[in-house]
Amino acid sequence: AYQGGFNGKTNFVVLLMDDMGWGDLGVYGEPNRETPNMDQMAAEGLLLPDFYSANPLCSPSRASLLSGRLPIRNGFYTTNLPGRNAYTPQNIMGGIPDSEILFPELLKEHGYRSKIIGKWHLGQQPQYLPHNHGFDEFFGAPNCHFGPYNNKKTPNIPVYKDAKMAGRYYEGDFKIDHVTGESNLTQRFIKEGIQFIEAQTQKNEPFFLYWAADATHGPMYASKPFLGKSARGLYGDAVMELDYGVGQILSTLKRLGIAGNTLVFFSSDNGAATYAKLGGGSNGPFLCGKETTFEGGMREPTIAWWPGKIPPGKVSRQVGSLMDFYTTFLDVAGIPAPKDRVLDGISLRKTLLNNTLVDRPIFYYRGDLLMAVRVGNYKAHLWTWANSWEEFRKGTDFCPGQRLKNMTVHHQEDHSKQPLLFNLAKDYGEKYQIKPNSEEYKSVIPKINAAVKEHLEHLKKGEPQLNYCDRAVMNWAPPGCKEIGQCLPVPPSDKTLCYWPH
Amino acid sequence: AYQGGFNGKTNFVVLLMDDMGWGDLGVYGEPNRETPNMDQMAAEGLLLPDFYSANPLCSPSRASLLSGRLPIRNGFYTTNLPGRNAYTPQNIMGGIPDSEILFPELLKEHGYRSKIIGKWHLGQQPQYLPHNHGFDEFFGAPNCHFGPYNNKKTPNIPVYKDAKMAGRYYEGDFKIDHVTGESNLTQRFIKEGIQFIEAQTQKNEPFFLYWAADATHGPMYASKPFLGKSARGLYGDAVMELDYGVGQILSTLKRLGIAGNTLVFFSSDNGAATYAKLGGGSNGPFLCGKETTFEGGMREPTIAWWPGKIPPGKVSRQVGSLMDFYTTFLDVAGIPAPKDRVLDGISLRKTLLNNTLVDRPIFYYRGDLLMAVRVGNYKAHLWTWANSWEEFRKGTDFCPGQRLKNMTVHHQEDHSKQPLLFNLAKDYGEKYQIKPNSEEYKSVIPKINAAVKEHLEHLKKGEPQLNYCDRAVMNWAPPGCKEIGQCLPVPPSDKTLCYWPH
Ligand SMILES: [Ca+2]
Ligand SMILES: [Ca+2]
Repeated sequence: AYQGGFNGKTNFVVLLMDDMGWGDLGVYGEPNRETPNMDQMAAEGLLLPDFYSANPLCSPSRASLLSGRLPIRNGFYTTNLPGRNAYTPQNIMGGIPDSEILFPELLKEHGYRSKIIGKWHLGQQPQYLPHNHGFDEFFGAPNCHFGPYNNKKTPNIPVYKDAKMAGRYYEGDFKIDHVTGESNLTQRFIKEGIQFIEAQTQKNEPFFLYWAADATHGPMYASKPFLGKSARGLYGDAVMELDYGVGQILSTLKRLGIAGNTLVFFSSDNGAATYAKLGGGSNGPFLCGKETTFEGGMREPTIAWWPGKIPPGKVSRQVGSLMDFYTTFLDVAGIPAPKDRVLDGISLRKTLLNNTLVDRPIFYYRGDLLMAVRVGNYKAHLWTWANSWEEFRKGTDFCPGQRLKNMTVHHQEDHSKQPLLFNLAKDYGEKYQIKPNSEEYKSVIPKINAAVKEHLEHLKKGEPQLNYCDRAVMNWAPPGCKEIGQCLPVPPSDKTLCYWPH
Repeated sequence: AYQGGFNGKTNFVVLLMDDMGWGDLGVYGEPNRETPNMDQMAAEGLLLPDFYSANPLCSPSRASLLSGRLPIRNGFYTTNLPGRNAYTPQNIMGGIPDSEILFPELLKEHGYRSKIIGKWHLGQQPQYLPHNHGFDEFFGAPNCHFGPYNNKKTPNIPVYKDAKMAGRYYEGDFKIDHVTGESNLTQRFIKEGIQFIEAQTQKNEPFFLYWAADATHGPMYASKPFLGKSARGLYGDAVMELDYGVGQILSTLKRLGIAGNTLVFFSSDNGAATYAKLGGGSNGPFLCGKETTFEGGMREPTIAWWPGKIPPGKVSRQVGSLMDFYTTFLDVAGIPAPKDRVLDGISLRKTLLNNTLVDRPIFYYRGDLLMAVRVGNYKAHLWTWANSWEEFRKGTDFCPGQRLKNMTVHHQEDHSKQPLLFNLAKDYGEKYQIKPNSEEYKSVIPKINAAVKEHLEHLKKGEPQLNYCDRAVMNWAPPGCKEIGQCLPVPPSDKTLCYWPH
């Protein structure tokens, strides 16, 4: 085992895609096979087909990844309406609470340096920014790169270099041509990643790199050499550029001789945005997509890579979660996990090294509502909802081409008295309900009920962070704006309850 | 390049699965990853994700594979009703016409010995059996192993050893326990395959092995060590045993040192039987399944393998067809293809060796009706039909959980005046019609029309073989029955038009 360098400590890398679907990787069956580097990563590492995000939406998923806890605990949800998805647009007042201990904070105490590249999404007010939550470096933005903005009603999203803004998306250096989709942002994210790894290697200082590129989130973008390269349009072009980036980062680790000392996870923050129709990705054989608690919304294309430690080319049926990165990294680094709170992540160290399996439930939340639970191969839907009739009739369809009775419904359906039960190993499309009068149902439901009871008994809900919005908290005058002459006048406060339509 | 042995000739192997879906292989995204050997075959060979059967049903698909011609030409269709799927149950009167030249006939003229193991399905009357159409050896059955039979109203399907029957399914040596699904048939098919390869190697005589195992066709079966092995039930168990068989056959080729001299194709005869619900396989992200001309009915999980010749681990976007095996094998063997008829197959030799691409259309027929056409990445539906309202209302659903306007319909819908157009590279789920008033539609449709016109101009329809049924032609007294005392009395003829419900 490699012990030299980095004071004997293992480096960590998370390559987190944005709205990329389980079915978007060649190795997960995408017919166009646009991802030779990700596929190669799987060939050299461990494929984890039963891996979940903690939420079908960006912000809560990412808050959970870094806090190791469900959104219902870390506050990344709303109580404005029941069962609604909420996130962090730039008028959100909330963000990651100081009371949450993100794992980079713990790594830092043990000599690690952490960098986030790309999308943060845990709040844009200064107190919520990465450098106040364990990260030493930051190249990217606090919010999604929604646009185009004109700096009038909403400011363009700032791009940070560490604790200070360096410019704004759609302006100057950080252009995204929202007509052609051309942008060199992914290339910059790649370069920043490589430079960080090189610098840390030079310093012999252990690191955590959180590479959160967002080119597959609308409005999508790719650099010139990748525009038109795929057969799937701009989405596929973005995938191909991200795949190139993954290859560049892994080959940097190899080139520097530190691959055997670096545990890398690849995954995505939520399912593909099926409502974007041909503009979004693929969830393969799964039901629906982003925003929903069907498999298409939360099953993520996950790969673990650690040459010499993780045996190559294997597949694990471990039911995993993005929240497990927290507990796994701490376990590998020999850092004790916080004992004063419930962590939803488990350590996958043995799964990675020995392909052992640990039983654990998956809780599928939408806002404050526990929609579904997976225990073993069984998934029980306590509630089902695609989206509202109102939205659906206007053409927003979270489940295009898919229609299942009691499942893809347009009102919130309560099944908690008699959950809809599926065997995900046989029926990953969630098409065939196990009949409530069957022996199978009768033997499984008590286990589901026990898991729910256990979960609710220990559930201390966090203060909901995503209830209030205010124009005044937008990115008008971020730290550093003065130095580069990019401060905008802050409008008066209009604090109000945010409205979350689905 | 390997030149020793087999008189410098290349051996050919076709590993043809039955009703296995595109999405059933790990390498094509099956979440349970039950197919390590098939996946390894892909890692050592060429993956062909855009590969089609000539028909969404067993018999016509297999007749086309061996004749290199569409069912509409070789006669494997019915005119009893328009657009109906027909096959060869044991009361069918037709079969493969003598006028068709199957490629084993041509191989035989050039010193090859051919063996079929498993399901023939090109007619059960003696004149239609394999040894009258180019095969030297036969271990398997003329029809599907439907059952259970009691030899009264219908005889149990005979199992042949070469030109004579050796027994019947469900009896004696050829048991299939249709309650537990236990049967050692796949193991026997594996053994027969290995022995044939060994014998040919010993004789230094080039060969074609057509390994047409059928354990994934209902009623499914697996041998004891595989029963309960998968998480998907009997279907998955059968897949795992077939995967084991593929591994055994490929490792035999390696062990005997003839892998570099043997071109192997793996594929399936039609899409997974989605109407079987959890009893069938998976078509991954594709629409509907067996019996339909949507992608789920005819896109097949295909791999080509030829160590040292085909570069390992690559993917080809070549639009291919099972009919291409015919033309490719002849090309590789240097045998001229028949010039007196239209062949629908093309040679994939250069695709395999150099990963070049050839433009070619795909015609999706259902019975006598041209339902759809693929040209480049575009597919146009001239007709759409899932199944009849009558069948659908009784619970037969070819597209479970999938509902698309004008597509998954229950009456035959004529779109020939304005075809429904899809871009399969972007939209492999056939969900998003390209609008008829768009520039894209206007530029593509002329190419589609030209391909259809060209096709119809050269179309000489074969005499339909699947119109008449007769109880008297069933397997009552197959060749060899006397020697083993298994002849049954032949009932009087009741010749009638066969009824094909979908
Ligand atoms: Ca996202
Ligand atoms: Ca079949």
